[in-house]
Amino acid sequence: MQKKHNQVDIKLLESEILNGDIKSISKALTLIESNLPQYHNLGNELVNSLTKHKKNSLRIGITGVPGVGKSTFIEALGEHLLDQNHKIGILAIDPSSQKTKGSILGDKTRMENLSQNTNVFIRPTPSSGTLGGVAKATRESITILEAAGYDIILIETVGVGQSEISVGAMVDFFLLLMIPGAGDELQGIKRGIMEMADGIVINKAEGENEKKAMLAKNQLENALHLFPLPESSQATRVMLCSALHKKAIDKVWKGIQVHLNKNKKSNYFEHRRANQAVFWFKEAVKQELETSFFQNEIVKANWQNFEEDVANQKLSPFSAAKQIIEKQTPKQ
Amino acid sequence: MQKKHNQVDIKLLESEILNGDIKSISKALTLIESNLPQYHNLGNELVNSLTKHKKNSLRIGITGVPGVGKSTFIEALGEHLLDQNHKIGILAIDPSSQKTKGSILGDKTRMENLSQNTNVFIRPTPSSGTLGGVAKATRESITILEAAGYDIILIETVGVGQSEISVGAMVDFFLLLMIPGAGDELQGIKRGIMEMADGIVINKAEGENEKKAMLAKNQLENALHLFPLPESSQATRVMLCSALHKKAIDKVWKGIQVHLNKNKKSNYFEHRRANQAVFWFKEAVKQELETSFFQNEIVKANWQNFEEDVANQKLSPFSAAKQIIEKQTPKQ
Repeated sequence: MQKKHNQVDIKLLESEILNGDIKSISKALTLIESNLPQYHNLGNELVNSLTKHKKNSLRIGITGVPGVGKSTFIEALGEHLLDQNHKIGILAIDPSSQKTKGSILGDKTRMENLSQNTNVFIRPTPSSGTLGGVAKATRESITILEAAGYDIILIETVGVGQSEISVGAMVDFFLLLMIPGAGDELQGIKRGIMEMADGIVINKAEGENEKKAMLAKNQLENALHLFPLPESSQATRVMLCSALHKKAIDKVWKGIQVHLNKNKKSNYFEHRRANQAVFWFKEAVKQELETSFFQNEIVKANWQNFEEDVANQKLSPFSAAKQIIEKQTPKQ
Repeated sequence: MQKKHNQVDIKLLESEILNGDIKSISKALTLIESNLPQYHNLGNELVNSLTKHKKNSLRIGITGVPGVGKSTFIEALGEHLLDQNHKIGILAIDPSSQKTKGSILGDKTRMENLSQNTNVFIRPTPSSGTLGGVAKATRESITILEAAGYDIILIETVGVGQSEISVGAMVDFFLLLMIPGAGDELQGIKRGIMEMADGIVINKAEGENEKKAMLAKNQLENALHLFPLPESSQATRVMLCSALHKKAIDKVWKGIQVHLNKNKKSNYFEHRRANQAVFWFKEAVKQELETSFFQNEIVKANWQNFEEDVANQKLSPFSAAKQIIEKQTPKQ
C-alpha cells in the first residue's frame, strides 16, 4: 500500500512540475538531493518519468576562477535573457562549497534582481556530498527544471577543480569566463579547461581595461589556433564583455546562439546530448560499483595498509588490487 | 605440489632476471602478457617480488603523432645513452597496433643499431588487449627491466589516443616530439597532451627547417606561458634537435637530466613515483571491478537496450545504472 501511495504522490508531483509549480519543483529537488534511500528512490522514479518529456532547452555551463565576476556575469546574462522572455534555471556545481561559507549562488543578495523574478529558479549546490553525488543531483535538477518550462539552464562552477569536467559533460555550451591580465590569463585555471571551452568570454572589458582585454583576446586566439578544433568542428569563440556595465552581453548571447545553431544544423547538438547521456549512464554504473566496493568494511579496514605498501614499493599495484578484491569477495 | 613447483620456477626466474639474463626477461614478459590465468598469476607473483628491488632508473615517455620521427629520435637518443654506458629498455604502449600492421617498435629494421646491441632490450606493444591490459603489461615490464639492470626505460606511444595518459602516469619525464610547421604544430595531437608534457622537443630542426623550428619554439614557449606551471613547478622545457643528423641530441638529454635532478632535489621525483604507484593501485581496482561487471552475461545481454533507451531519453542515466546493477546482483 505504501508503494502505491508513493506512486500516486510522484504522479501528482510530476504533473505539478509540468505545470511549472514552484513548490513542487523545490520538493522534487529536495528528493533527489536526499540521502535517505526512500526519498532518493522516489526522486529517481520522478526524474525517470520527467526524462521522457522532451523540451527545447539550452544548457550553458559557466566557469572561471573566483574574482572573475561570475555572479555579476550571470546576473547580466540572466537579465538579458529575461528581456527575451526566457525562463531561466540557475544551478551550481561546487562540492567544495559549504553552507556556512556559501557558494556564490547561495549568496543570493549578489543576484538580487534575478532572485526576485518568478521566471528565474536559482538553486545553490547541495551543501554536502561527493562530486559524483553533486554532479548527479545537478544533472537531475536540469531534467526537473526543463520539464517545468525553464528553457535556459545556466550551470555555474568554479574553475579550480574536477567539477568542470562534470559540467562540461552536461551542457550544450561551455563558457570560460576570464579577466584581462598581463599574459597570464590562465593562472589558476586548471590545465585542460581552456580546451574544454566552446567559448571564452573576457569580462571586465571596461574603461582602462579595454585595451588589455583586446590584447588578451588576440593572445588567446593565437594560442587556441595551436590546438586542434573541438569535437564540434567549430573554433573556440573568444568574446569580450563588461558584466558590470552590462556591455556586450547581447553580443555574447548572440555568439552562443550562432554557435549552438551551427551545432544543431550539423546534428552535433543532438549527438553531444546522446553521448552525454550515455556518458552519465556509464559513470553512474562505475560510481555505483566503486562506492559499494569502497564502502565495504573489509576494504575500508585494509585500504590504508595496502596503499602504503604500494607507495613504498613493497607491493606491486596490480598485486595489491588483486589481494584487496579477494579479501572483499565472499568465499564461495 | 604443482604450486610448490611453480614457486621454485619463479624464484629461479627472479634470480636470473636480477642477473640480467635475456632469455629469462623474455620469459617473464611473456608471462605477464599472457591471457592464461595460471601464467598470468605467476607473472603477478614475479613482478611483486621484483618490485621490492629498488633501482636507480629513469623512465622517459616519448609521444608524438606519426611522421614526427619518433623511432629515429629513439634510435639517436638510444645511441647517445649507450655511449654513456647506460643499459636501455625500450617499450611501446599502443593498443591500436596489430601484429600485421606492426608498431614502429615492431619494425625493428628502423632501429637497426639499437636492436643489435646487447645493452638494449626492445619490446613492442603486446599485440592484443585493451588499453588497460597493455598499460598494465607495460608498467610491469618496467619493473622487470629495471630489476634486470636496465637503468633507462624509454616508453613510446603515439600521440593520438588515450594511451598518453597511461604513459604520463608511469614515467618520470614525459616528452612530446613535434616537427616545425606553420603555426599548427599541434594538429593531430590530442587536446591536453601538451599540458602533460614535461618537455617538448621540436625534431627535424635541420637545413631550411631550422628557422621554422626556432619560430615554432618561440610560439610554443609563448603559448605555454599562458598555462599554469606543471605540478613539478618547473616550466615545460622546449628543445630543438635533428634526430636524423644526430644534432643536439646531447642537449636534449642534458635538458632532461637537469629537469629530473631538480625534481629529485625538490623530492617531487619520489613524490610523483609514489603517487603513480597509488594511481595504478586504484586504477587496477576500478578496472577489475568494471571488467568483472561488464563481462557478466546478464549485463552483456542487457547493455545495448539500456544504452539506447538512455540515448533516446526514454530512461534517465541514473535509473538505467541502478536497474542494470540490480539485474546483475544475485537475489538474496
